[in-house]
Amino acid sequence: MWYRSEITKKLGVQYPIIQAGMAGGVTTPELVAAVSNSGALGTLGAGYMTPETMQQAIKQIKQLTDQPFAVNLFIPEIPNVDTEAINQANEWLRPYREALQLTKPEVKQPSSSNYEKQLEILLQEGVPICSFTFGVPDKETIQKLKQHHLLLIGTATTVQEAMINEVNGMDMVVMQGSEAGGHRGTFLGEFEDAMIGTMALVPQAVDQVSIPVIAAGGIMDGRGILAALTLGAQAVQMGTAFLTCLESGAKKQHKEAILHTTEEQPVITSAFSGKPARGIKNQFITEMAAYEKDLPSYPIQNALTKEIRREAANQNRPEWMHLWSGQGPRLSRQQAAGEMISKWILQIDERIK
Amino acid sequence: MWYRSEITKKLGVQYPIIQAGMAGGVTTPELVAAVSNSGALGTLGAGYMTPETMQQAIKQIKQLTDQPFAVNLFIPEIPNVDTEAINQANEWLRPYREALQLTKPEVKQPSSSNYEKQLEILLQEGVPICSFTFGVPDKETIQKLKQHHLLLIGTATTVQEAMINEVNGMDMVVMQGSEAGGHRGTFLGEFEDAMIGTMALVPQAVDQVSIPVIAAGGIMDGRGILAALTLGAQAVQMGTAFLTCLESGAKKQHKEAILHTTEEQPVITSAFSGKPARGIKNQFITEMAAYEKDLPSYPIQNALTKEIRREAANQNRPEWMHLWSGQGPRLSRQQAAGEMISKWILQIDERIK
Repeated sequence: MWYRSEITKKLGVQYPIIQAGMAGGVTTPELVAAVSNSGALGTLGAGYMTPETMQQAIKQIKQLTDQPFAVNLFIPEIPNVDTEAINQANEWLRPYREALQLTKPEVKQPSSSNYEKQLEILLQEGVPICSFTFGVPDKETIQKLKQHHLLLIGTATTVQEAMINEVNGMDMVVMQGSEAGGHRGTFLGEFEDAMIGTMALVPQAVDQVSIPVIAAGGIMDGRGILAALTLGAQAVQMGTAFLTCLESGAKKQHKEAILHTTEEQPVITSAFSGKPARGIKNQFITEMAAYEKDLPSYPIQNALTKEIRREAANQNRPEWMHLWSGQGPRLSRQQAAGEMISKWILQIDERIK
Repeated sequence: MWYRSEITKKLGVQYPIIQAGMAGGVTTPELVAAVSNSGALGTLGAGYMTPETMQQAIKQIKQLTDQPFAVNLFIPEIPNVDTEAINQANEWLRPYREALQLTKPEVKQPSSSNYEKQLEILLQEGVPICSFTFGVPDKETIQKLKQHHLLLIGTATTVQEAMINEVNGMDMVVMQGSEAGGHRGTFLGEFEDAMIGTMALVPQAVDQVSIPVIAAGGIMDGRGILAALTLGAQAVQMGTAFLTCLESGAKKQHKEAILHTTEEQPVITSAFSGKPARGIKNQFITEMAAYEKDLPSYPIQNALTKEIRREAANQNRPEWMHLWSGQGPRLSRQQAAGEMISKWILQIDERIK
């Protein structure tokens, strides 16, 4: 069968399809479980979760499925708190806060303690698979997780980043093409240099690393899945396609925006988080564009805009929300995750019979 | 067979592979004929050619092959000559000219007369297929060419541009993904908005237009060809892969640069021509980056830098040459075009048997 590979065997799933671990409430336990119950791999996007919330979600997932699932974590970044940059950013953000009747948040010094507690919980809960974004865990962490038989999936946006994942002992690596929605996973050099399209990125990575490659970026249906496997990937990771699922926890304005936009609208912006990410162009992105280079680093800018985005959703102001999307929104559908997956599999079976 | 499609039938070729009509001396009659003699479609890149040079090249191609071939033309752009911008650009270009012992060129008002004479010659020489970049010919021209049974291939970088090609009567359309080397074919709106990766662009276009779609951008071997067909394209167009062929007329420094670079190096620059194009980062691109927004429009900036690039090649200064390349240079090979094509076909046959 076309869908058997080293990866499906290792992951213990039927289909070589991974639902991306989108952070910020998108990956409800219902979504993760629905995906895993349909023979693909669901992923809890725990990047922004507290250890407690994450543990709670993992317990719920385990009640909803007995199939393998993954948890996605963010490798922490610890910039210094630059008070001047924060004051300047708060000034730029003032009009949105005023309109939404919000006050300035208190800024905490970022640390890695949340991440370390998250890792402990992975072990406690016996999570079988963990993926990482924004870097590679240190060798000690990798060793420890592997001793507990966790399968480790890395994220790379260039061949060199893929090689670093391999050398450090990651089991497989997601190659994130420039089409992808949400944050760029780039952790080496300038992100602009790492905007490589999936069609070019995947075969070049496949030729250079010996760990299995997972393709991501612009893959939205059976055609994209089969094309990615043809390029040499052993599996695909899909984010935007799952974001509009019935089980997804994305805000309704976010889902609607994806379902009704076109391929030119999702643009790269650092305005929401201080880190480049692809989202549908709106007023916030356009107005903040001029200040992008001077914003506080991730995750500080992320903390500064968090309440604005949350409250914008509550007050139905999508023009100020982060509407992450990849470059294939015309192919998005509002459907149950399981139905979506079945449809893709049928599409592929039709194509290759 | 996997390679039969409406497009191969219409074009009269065996394989759904088009060698891109790269301008600037790359597409020698030997390259075009070698590609067409191998069952794919060779294209003469006549964008920058005088009508006389183009006619000469077409006659040579006809002596070298009895198979179909195409000619690529640029839809002319006629900006006003902005003397101030030209003087400023000349000032920025002075260090290169001095180092290369060149004088300032005389700037002529761009016109469409070259293009109109090119169209006449297509008819005179009975060229069977013509592709266009930087826009769509007007309806009168399309009508006239079609009366003479020319097949017309357009270039688009967004779904909307593809629709305009269809509405205007083009027979098929190349969807140029963001991975592609050389000039962006964008003719509507901002080019940045039209940087859509091939993986996302192709299926969205296929769903929205009824003329056949040709995929381009990051396709470098049999894996890429089959992946593109899987996405719904009926053929592929490949540029960079053919640029390093033995029969290609690209400068040796250009070929060497592609053969030895990595996927992050080809970046978008307007410095050489006044129009965004993807080429391998070098000193000229880096130094001119700050002035990009203030350079004269294409094709005026192109005329200003032409001698610099030519003389840089003569004096072996690749740091000042335009080294166009797509995002898949790690997959480039120096080989005869015919051997390359056979290898790709074998690769695909192996994959789908």
